[in-house]
Amino acid sequence: MNIHGIPTRSIRPLPDLSGVEIIDQTRLPHALVLRTLRTLEDAAEAIAVMRVRGAPLIGATAAYGLALALAEEAGDARIEAACAALAATRPTAVNLRWALERMTAHLLPLPPRHRRDAAWAEAAAICDEDVAINQAIGRHGLDLIRARHQRRSGTLNVMTHCNAGWLATVDWGTALAPVYAAFDAGLPVHVWVSETRPRNQGAALTAWELASHGVPHTVIADNAAGHLMQRGEVDLVIVGADRVAANGDVANKIGTYLKALAAADNGVPFYVAVPGPTLDWRLADGSGIPIEARAAAEVTHIQGRAEDGRVLGVRLTPEASPAANPAFDVTPARLVTGLITERGICPASTSGLRSLYPERAHA
Amino acid sequence: MNIHGIPTRSIRPLPDLSGVEIIDQTRLPHALVLRTLRTLEDAAEAIAVMRVRGAPLIGATAAYGLALALAEEAGDARIEAACAALAATRPTAVNLRWALERMTAHLLPLPPRHRRDAAWAEAAAICDEDVAINQAIGRHGLDLIRARHQRRSGTLNVMTHCNAGWLATVDWGTALAPVYAAFDAGLPVHVWVSETRPRNQGAALTAWELASHGVPHTVIADNAAGHLMQRGEVDLVIVGADRVAANGDVANKIGTYLKALAAADNGVPFYVAVPGPTLDWRLADGSGIPIEARAAAEVTHIQGRAEDGRVLGVRLTPEASPAANPAFDVTPARLVTGLITERGICPASTSGLRSLYPERAHA
Repeated sequence: MNIHGIPTRSIRPLPDLSGVEIIDQTRLPHALVLRTLRTLEDAAEAIAVMRVRGAPLIGATAAYGLALALAEEAGDARIEAACAALAATRPTAVNLRWALERMTAHLLPLPPRHRRDAAWAEAAAICDEDVAINQAIGRHGLDLIRARHQRRSGTLNVMTHCNAGWLATVDWGTALAPVYAAFDAGLPVHVWVSETRPRNQGAALTAWELASHGVPHTVIADNAAGHLMQRGEVDLVIVGADRVAANGDVANKIGTYLKALAAADNGVPFYVAVPGPTLDWRLADGSGIPIEARAAAEVTHIQGRAEDGRVLGVRLTPEASPAANPAFDVTPARLVTGLITERGICPASTSGLRSLYPERAHA
Repeated sequence: MNIHGIPTRSIRPLPDLSGVEIIDQTRLPHALVLRTLRTLEDAAEAIAVMRVRGAPLIGATAAYGLALALAEEAGDARIEAACAALAATRPTAVNLRWALERMTAHLLPLPPRHRRDAAWAEAAAICDEDVAINQAIGRHGLDLIRARHQRRSGTLNVMTHCNAGWLATVDWGTALAPVYAAFDAGLPVHVWVSETRPRNQGAALTAWELASHGVPHTVIADNAAGHLMQRGEVDLVIVGADRVAANGDVANKIGTYLKALAAADNGVPFYVAVPGPTLDWRLADGSGIPIEARAAAEVTHIQGRAEDGRVLGVRLTPEASPAANPAFDVTPARLVTGLITERGICPASTSGLRSLYPERAHA
C-alpha cells in the first residue's frame, strides 16, 4: 500500500539478489528504517526479534531466508539445516512451516547447482501469490462491508486487533485488505485500532499504515473494545490469524478471544481473514496449536519516543514484580461469524472450510 | 497495609490539621512520594489528575477537601461552592457524591463556627468507616477463597483488574481485601495482575502494593486474561467498582466487562467487591451511569522509568493517529457471580442487594 503516496511492499529482493530489503518494524511508528538481510542468520534474527512479523510475512521472509542460505552451498544438508534454523524462530504461525515445506519440495528434486536461482524465484512466487491472495480477501471482504453499508448509511466502523495489515503480509494485508478495498472504493470507513499490548502492533503498525494510506482511524486501549461494542460503535470486527485449525478454531494475537466474546455478546459480526497458507489441515481443532510464550520484558517494559526525539524503552512495573507473556490465544470457532479466505467467505467449521477447499476433504 | 513492614494508610490528616498527606500515586511504582494537600484546590487537583484515585479514596479525599475549604470561611455558600468544585473532578465514582452529601448533611445544621472542626472529624470518621468496611469485605471474601481452597489444594489463583487495593481505599482495599486476608491467614494465594491500560493501575499500583506486602503475583497484559482462564489458570476473579446500580450492574475500570465475559465463558466465578457507599440506589440499572472520557494522551503516551533512572513519558502512536479513551465500562449483572459487600455476599440483582440492605427497599 502507499507510504505518503508511494506504493510499497513490506519485503523485496535486491536487484542483484545479494540480499532482501525489509522495513524494520521494531522501529515503527517513530522511524521508517529499511534493513537489508544478507544471510540466513539475518533472516532468522529478523523473524525472531520481530523486525518482520505477521504470519504471511514470516512465511515470505523464511522463503527468502532459505534462498540466502544457499548462496555458497546448496546441498540437501544445507537446506535441512537452514529450514531447522528458520522453523525454530517462531512456533505459532503455521505459514513459516508452510513456506519452508513448499520451498523444500520445490528445491530438493533439483540439482544443487540450480537450487539457488530456483529458491529466489520460488520465494518471489510466494510473495506474488500472497499479494494476489490478499487482494482476493479484500474483494470478498469488501462485499461484506458494502452490504453492511447498504443497510445502514453513515460511517462504517470496523474494529481490528494487532496488525494484520500490509505490514503483516507482502502487501494489502489480510484483515485490512477489505478496509483498503472499501477506502479505495470511496466507502466511508473508519477503523478502531486496538493498541495490542504487550507489543503494541496496533498502536505502532496498524495506526501507522492506516495513517500512511490516509484511512480514518482511532487508537484505543485493548480494554475499550467491549465498551465500544456495547455502545453500538462497532459495525464489524475483522482480525487476522496466525493459524486456523481444520474446524475453524483461530489462533491469533493474545486478546483476540476477548474481542470475539464481546462481539458475540453484542451481536457484532466477527470475521477472521485467513489466507490458505494459514490453514493448518493437520490440526483437527485449536487445542493442538502451540502458544508462544515470549519474554516478560515485553510486558514490564515498553518502547516509545521521548520528547527529545529519542526512542527508548521504559520500565512500567515494580522491579519486584514478575510478568507472564503468552503471545497468542485460541478463539473457538463458535465465536467466529465467518472466515474470509481468498476463495470466498465460509462458516468457521470443518464443513465450511471443506466447501471452499474440497481438495483437502480427502487429506 | 504494609510498605516494607510498616503499616500505612493511603491518606492521613496532619496532626495540626493544616493539611492532608497523600501518597502521590502518579509517581508509583518508581518512587514513593508523599504530598501534602493544603487547600480545596490541592484536593480537587489531586483527584482530577489521579494523584489519588479509586472510588473509596476519592470519597475520602473529597471529604478532607471540604474540611480544607472551610479553613477561613464556613458559610453555606462556601460549602456549596466547595462541593461543586470537588464534584466536578470525576464523574463516574459515586463515592465522591456520597461523601460530599454526607459531609453537607452533617455540616449544614451546625453553626458556621463549629463547621471546620466538625468537617475534620467527619472526614476522619468516613476514613475509619472505610477501613472497617473493607476489613468486613476481606472477611467475607476470605470465606470464598477458603471454600475454594478446601475443594482444590495448591495455589489459589485470583485475577484482578485495575487497582482496587489499599491504594484505592484508605486501607485494605475492596477487591484485594480478601487477598490480603487470605495471605495473612497463610493460604497459598497468587494474584494475576492485569496491567490495566491505559493508565496501568494494575502494573503500577496493584503490583507495587502486593510486592510491598509480600503477596505473590504476576503482571500480565490485559489481553492475556481470557487465555489464562481458558487454560484453567484462574480460580476466581475479584474486581472493585466505581459505581453499582440497584440491579447489580457494575461500572468499573474499562476492560472489566471483557474479563467478566471470559469468566462466564470458562465457568470462572466473577465477584465484585463493593462497599455500601459505592452502591447507587438512585439508578435502576447501569445504563444511566456516566462514563468518563479521559484525555487521548493517556492512550498515545505512557510514563515509565528509563535505564538512567529518569521517569518520563514516551509516545506510543504515530503523530497522525487520534485516540479515544473511555475510562470505564458497565458489566451487566448477569455476568457477575456475586457482590462482596461489608454485610456479606449477595447475588448481583435488585433482590440480592435488598436482602443485604433492607432499609433501602423502601427508598
